[in-house]
Amino acid sequence: MGKEVIYTQRVEFGDCDPARIVWFPNFFRWIDAASRHFFIECGVAPWHVTEQTMGVIGTPLVDTHAKFMKTASYGDVLQIHTSVADWRGKSFVQRYRIRRDADEIMECDEVRIFAARLDGGGIRALAIPDEIRKLCE
Amino acid sequence: MGKEVIYTQRVEFGDCDPARIVWFPNFFRWIDAASRHFFIECGVAPWHVTEQTMGVIGTPLVDTHAKFMKTASYGDVLQIHTSVADWRGKSFVQRYRIRRDADEIMECDEVRIFAARLDGGGIRALAIPDEIRKLCE
Amino acid sequence: MGKEVIYTQRVEFGDCDPARIVWFPNFFRWIDAASRHFFIECGVAPWHVTEQTMGVIGTPLVDTHAKFMKTASYGDVLQIHTSVADWRGKSFVQRYRIRRDADEIMECDEVRIFAARLDGGGIRALAIPDEIRKLCE
Amino acid sequence: MGKEVIYTQRVEFGDCDPARIVWFPNFFRWIDAASRHFFIECGVAPWHVTEQTMGVIGTPLVDTHAKFMKTASYGDVLQIHTSVADWRGKSFVQRYRIRRDADEIMECDEVRIFAARLDGGGIRALAIPDEIRKLCE
Repeated sequence: MGKEVIYTQRVEFGDCDPARIVWFPNFFRWIDAASRHFFIECGVAPWHVTEQTMGVIGTPLVDTHAKFMKTASYGDVLQIHTSVADWRGKSFVQRYRIRRDADEIMECDEVRIFAARLDGGGIRALAIPDEIRKLCE
Repeated sequence: MGKEVIYTQRVEFGDCDPARIVWFPNFFRWIDAASRHFFIECGVAPWHVTEQTMGVIGTPLVDTHAKFMKTASYGDVLQIHTSVADWRGKSFVQRYRIRRDADEIMECDEVRIFAARLDGGGIRALAIPDEIRKLCE
Repeated sequence: MGKEVIYTQRVEFGDCDPARIVWFPNFFRWIDAASRHFFIECGVAPWHVTEQTMGVIGTPLVDTHAKFMKTASYGDVLQIHTSVADWRGKSFVQRYRIRRDADEIMECDEVRIFAARLDGGGIRALAIPDEIRKLCE
Repeated sequence: MGKEVIYTQRVEFGDCDPARIVWFPNFFRWIDAASRHFFIECGVAPWHVTEQTMGVIGTPLVDTHAKFMKTASYGDVLQIHTSVADWRGKSFVQRYRIRRDADEIMECDEVRIFAARLDGGGIRALAIPDEIRKLCE
């Protein structure tokens, strides 16, 4: 099944819009932090280190699909349950379940890659590095 | 087919991350602006007005699915082609194609609702208001 | 001297810019959260409650002055030491000292007001509410 | 007096908070964009180019002082009048006047440096590059 890491996020006043609910792009800010945090908790070095050691500059998104079930507002504390649902050749599916205790707020499945920088600018997908995968399973 | 509105967005230094490419949650910030802009360009009143006239406080997201094809960085100018791809009973599909001239950067299909505020807090979906739909077709 | 509340903030990848340091507007996001958190920790009700009970919709900024001493980057954990340095007739000075353990990262003094909504739109400053001031001293 | 460049910024729904006014950290996002835009309009190369040619990775903030005069909300279009008010040995004062047509919304004076990357990480201030100063006067 792989590891699951929980990232905790407070919702602040400024995260909410005039409708007084979380402005949805903020969920993606938190998900991206949860993604990075997942790898750190699994023991993977920060990206500025992996850039030196294996050429990995980060895990850019290829595809994301999210469902919003309940709204959240400031004062709420959210738990972002994070795991890798699938390892593929050159990409992986990272899964997020955002809860406010028992309430399901949002769920999201992403396809991400491990990216290296191309000489002429731009980035390319690397094969999933074994040493990273082992740490996360 | 419905109307298409193009929203233009400059990419700024602060929109980019240490990998020097747009940090992806910013695409959702711009898409949300493009969504609102679409309705304004079609002649729909701002949400603080529609809240008074028809109870509509905005168009919160129910579901979003995005693909990222090419990266963008600061100095780029993006065109967000925005339309409504489908009108359903209590929701609609809003479609975005983000281009940097000929380059396809990102595409996104969203399910959104027209929301009213519930008495006890929270929001609910209204039936698609005819007067809004007519303006957008 | 008044109470001091410490707000803890992780720095994330997406908080950093292509120079790989925190993009400075993010410090103001965190300071605003620390401001609200200060009042909550002192026992003041959330703004949507105070709007009902005493007309206070929040504490908008009038003036801010910040110095940036050291840079921070992702992986850092910051402590935002927050207090009220001065109570005036219709405004107050809120003070922030952002540290990464012993390192001084940023300091900021703000003038804020307790705002009420005006009938025709816009906001106005209220006299400092005694019940709020007592909780914070 | 030096050049003045005007940067135009739409205010969006998501830029506003539950009090329905611009959440103030967003003003700093726009000011930072106006800062960079000022140099581009004066003919300075983008920072990723100046990093190669003269070691300048950007213009981090040292100090900022802002006053907020009137609120703004979504639908507003702001003009950010940007100039350099003072050139010093290793820093400069960048000045912003944000207007909504005749209304004065915010003003801000910043001290910034031209930064180079240090070998061991971190940044340092360079002497003001003559070729940049000449382009901006």
